[in-house]
Amino acid sequence: MNNKKRGLLIVISGPSGAGKGTICKELLDKNDNLLLSVSATTRSPRKGEVDGVNYHFLSKDEFINRIEKDDFLEHAEVYGNYYGTPKSNVDKMLESGKDVILEIDIQGALKVKENTEEGVFVFILPPSMEELKQRIIKRGSETPESLMKRFKSAYKEINFVSKYNYAVVNDEVGVAVEKLEAIILAEKCRVDRLKHSILDSKEDLIHEQLYD
Amino acid sequence: MNNKKRGLLIVISGPSGAGKGTICKELLDKNDNLLLSVSATTRSPRKGEVDGVNYHFLSKDEFINRIEKDDFLEHAEVYGNYYGTPKSNVDKMLESGKDVILEIDIQGALKVKENTEEGVFVFILPPSMEELKQRIIKRGSETPESLMKRFKSAYKEINFVSKYNYAVVNDEVGVAVEKLEAIILAEKCRVDRLKHSILDSKEDLIHEQLYD
Repeated sequence: MNNKKRGLLIVISGPSGAGKGTICKELLDKNDNLLLSVSATTRSPRKGEVDGVNYHFLSKDEFINRIEKDDFLEHAEVYGNYYGTPKSNVDKMLESGKDVILEIDIQGALKVKENTEEGVFVFILPPSMEELKQRIIKRGSETPESLMKRFKSAYKEINFVSKYNYAVVNDEVGVAVEKLEAIILAEKCRVDRLKHSILDSKEDLIHEQLYD
Repeated sequence: MNNKKRGLLIVISGPSGAGKGTICKELLDKNDNLLLSVSATTRSPRKGEVDGVNYHFLSKDEFINRIEKDDFLEHAEVYGNYYGTPKSNVDKMLESGKDVILEIDIQGALKVKENTEEGVFVFILPPSMEELKQRIIKRGSETPESLMKRFKSAYKEINFVSKYNYAVVNDEVGVAVEKLEAIILAEKCRVDRLKHSILDSKEDLIHEQLYD
């Protein structure tokens, strides 16, 4: 295998409460060839946050400048602050042969899908709607009304699974991580991705046949 | 997960000398949920061959009767004997929830592809053309002419990789088997395959929202 073979972009997304954060953390801990994409933001660093680790902290001017240069796979404004996925950073990591995990909400994932030809899109599903409800309840005090609202929103979000390549049910973190590892390995064997390297080995063959 | 969920049909194919037999054997030894599809034939059993294990031994009349009933995923006549993959046997195994391995030459695999909507098609590649040459030489004494003929035929066959879903390079059997296991696990997470079960869980959700 060529060491400089471009890595895979794996977009991991799903409704809040599905557990994508936990899954990504374990996946990254277990696999040295995986890197996490770090978002850029214009909000101020909080105590303990490190530039380039938690976020790339940018000034508003710089952020807007990068938007104009088309350097975001996706970006959004939330309460007056910008957040985005810097295209050139992701590209640099992929070019070095590393696989890149992009953990992102559903809206962001769909924008990424519009803005790039590559990317394997994985939707993390809660094991059941009952379990999702329990997780949402555990996260903080909810009134029955706001619980129903968040629940209905998760329900609507699950419709977007059809835009994704894979769906992984997060009933057990270890099993979900194994499935993601399998997806990454399998994607690298897909003929659509391999065509180029197979043609290369055919060139070798022609050479061997003619000149050996 | 529903225990009766239909299994996967995995068609493992490739040029002779690529090592698909060794890979399939190890894959089957390691995975209890996998079964090997047993071919039917009209040739006489050889010493030690067991009906239903090595082959399903059929009379010529019975074989032709089954062809007429459209009960083969593929079949061929070789030196006056018929060989084929019985559709109903494969279907029974899949319906029981088992995954089924079909180890077959390229011509057979392409016929299977024409005759069924399902099936994950995996092409086993030799690590290099030089290695394939060595393997072909090891198999028996070859004249330079017959070696070149077999080699050219393997070269032509590699073109068919574009008809397959996955390609696995057999440089190390253990690694190739891991890739096949990953392909099987990943395929079960593909959204195209999951749609039905996700819709089912959405039905549960509607029920929970309305009646809980």
